[in-house]
Amino acid sequence: MPFTVKALQKTGPDKPFQVVEISRRDPRPDDVVIGIRAAGICHSDIHTVRNEWGRAHFPLTVGHEIAGVVESVGSAVRRWKVGDRVGVGCMVNSCGTCQECLAGNEQCCTGTHGQSRGMVGTYDSTDVDGTITQGGYAQKIVVNERFVCRIPDALGFEEAAPLLCAGITTYSPLAAWNARPGSQVAVVGLGGLGHMGVQIAAARGAEVTVFTRTLRKQDIARELGASHVLATSEDGFFKAHRASFDLILNTISAQIPLRSYLGLLRPRGVMVNVGLPPEPLELPMGNLINGNKVLAGSNIGGIAQTQEMLDFCAAHGFGARVETIGVDQVDAAYDRVVAGDVRFRFVIDTSTF
Amino acid sequence: MPFTVKALQKTGPDKPFQVVEISRRDPRPDDVVIGIRAAGICHSDIHTVRNEWGRAHFPLTVGHEIAGVVESVGSAVRRWKVGDRVGVGCMVNSCGTCQECLAGNEQCCTGTHGQSRGMVGTYDSTDVDGTITQGGYAQKIVVNERFVCRIPDALGFEEAAPLLCAGITTYSPLAAWNARPGSQVAVVGLGGLGHMGVQIAAARGAEVTVFTRTLRKQDIARELGASHVLATSEDGFFKAHRASFDLILNTISAQIPLRSYLGLLRPRGVMVNVGLPPEPLELPMGNLINGNKVLAGSNIGGIAQTQEMLDFCAAHGFGARVETIGVDQVDAAYDRVVAGDVRFRFVIDTSTF
Repeated sequence: MPFTVKALQKTGPDKPFQVVEISRRDPRPDDVVIGIRAAGICHSDIHTVRNEWGRAHFPLTVGHEIAGVVESVGSAVRRWKVGDRVGVGCMVNSCGTCQECLAGNEQCCTGTHGQSRGMVGTYDSTDVDGTITQGGYAQKIVVNERFVCRIPDALGFEEAAPLLCAGITTYSPLAAWNARPGSQVAVVGLGGLGHMGVQIAAARGAEVTVFTRTLRKQDIARELGASHVLATSEDGFFKAHRASFDLILNTISAQIPLRSYLGLLRPRGVMVNVGLPPEPLELPMGNLINGNKVLAGSNIGGIAQTQEMLDFCAAHGFGARVETIGVDQVDAAYDRVVAGDVRFRFVIDTSTF
Repeated sequence: MPFTVKALQKTGPDKPFQVVEISRRDPRPDDVVIGIRAAGICHSDIHTVRNEWGRAHFPLTVGHEIAGVVESVGSAVRRWKVGDRVGVGCMVNSCGTCQECLAGNEQCCTGTHGQSRGMVGTYDSTDVDGTITQGGYAQKIVVNERFVCRIPDALGFEEAAPLLCAGITTYSPLAAWNARPGSQVAVVGLGGLGHMGVQIAAARGAEVTVFTRTLRKQDIARELGASHVLATSEDGFFKAHRASFDLILNTISAQIPLRSYLGLLRPRGVMVNVGLPPEPLELPMGNLINGNKVLAGSNIGGIAQTQEMLDFCAAHGFGARVETIGVDQVDAAYDRVVAGDVRFRFVIDTSTF
């Protein structure tokens, strides 16, 4: 039987969040029901409910950084049992049979599954049954067991929740492009994504430099593992640091001068982008060709790699740095995220419903 | 003692080529003197002497696709002997000690060497002694032995000459990004670079598709190894071939719609660019992030890889397809190259000096 849970819902881009009851589906044999303990606030949630991407289906509950406990499992579930500490990130389903799914890149799914096409996002996405998915700012969620990850005991729910998006979004490109001992890695931006990128790159053994607009966060950047903190607003910044980096992880979604950033790379260096600027960037091709540079994009990461990332963070003794809030503080928190005023992720304590 | 040789020289962008005597340096102990038999005409030669890149030093002799025979060797030369069949490409020196040179990527040299900085181009480049290098449209050239490659006996001088630039420029990215059996490779443009890219990708076992403006060259494209030839001007081209390619080798220097081309890539696909459009391209970052796409640049290739490419071409029984011309036909040939009217490279027969 479908059941109802309390959730934060927006009925339109300009409406405040309201606590309402939403319906969760009757668990299928391969579903788990998760009691949510903590839900992170990702900038994508804000873009979505403010309808800045122009495709939101209202009324809507967002949230794709979910940590909680398994409350019940379907008859066919073998991987999970009641009481398991688990997380759910940006995806809740995919076809499972295309080349990408089989290779563990469910986020790149090219198949169809019921009425869904490609990966099914955790919220605001067409599910296999044609309904629009509703996210994690809620008491419970029902999810196909393949899209659930184990949260290691060493990680609290609140510090674990943001790993399900901000963690994997930065871990995946740092792994793919091989941040390693001896490599010079720059992380652009020190927000929710950037502060995970710094910790992960440092834990992988790379020498990490943080680029920020100001040096305001310099101490915390070093505490997170950065060896150097540089303000991009410095006079002559791009000239002074020319050809210095093997890998640049760009977490910001601002319009940046690609020509200048590519100049910071050593020959055969890689700039990988996880932030989504609203307008196209200008790419002078010569700056890519000279020195055999690489410009890449990276979109979250697959489920197996998400588990690997959680285990990696636990083994290295870190999670996300968060500020915990109650369900009545989300509207105010959104304004603070947009203003860049959070260290480094807000997490909703769902016991406050 | 320095000596003089006949060469084709331009005294300014609007002047015709003239046969003059130019000076070649007294061979140093590590130099070889090469009697040039064939010199290919690369589009870069044209950009340079027409001063489209705005930095030409006139009077100038260009040409960096050089095939010939060793005529004498310096006292310290051990690799080469008189009579060896050899080639010289886009570089004639580099520092030899930086990380890039040591890794065999002399084209990415970051060091200094005498008065030169980075790799020393075969023409119009500041040499270690401060002189401006003069290229291969000449009877002879004097080159440091490290920048000489062996031309396998199976390759004629004329079909070998263009390999030293067009061959390595396409071989290097196809190797770096692993064109292989099972991979779907698209080659954009079927000119001097493209016709080598098709042959090399096919010889590596990839399934090759050629994108051209029209289907005029369809038969020859198939003869070179393409399985498919597509006209990008077809209605609905980008939609019809969406998500179809693992690797796109873009050899053209036109402004192209990156958004559309990135859409042709499968998830995690790579578009590598070797052509240099005069203006920046528009890059919509979302099209790179969704599907974890990669946009790369590639600039010629190192000396060891150039030798590997020559051996590869010989082993697979192909060289460049060329039209051979005399020294008095170069101005006319330039106009035909710019008009796209050459299959696929002009090569100057230097016995016509």
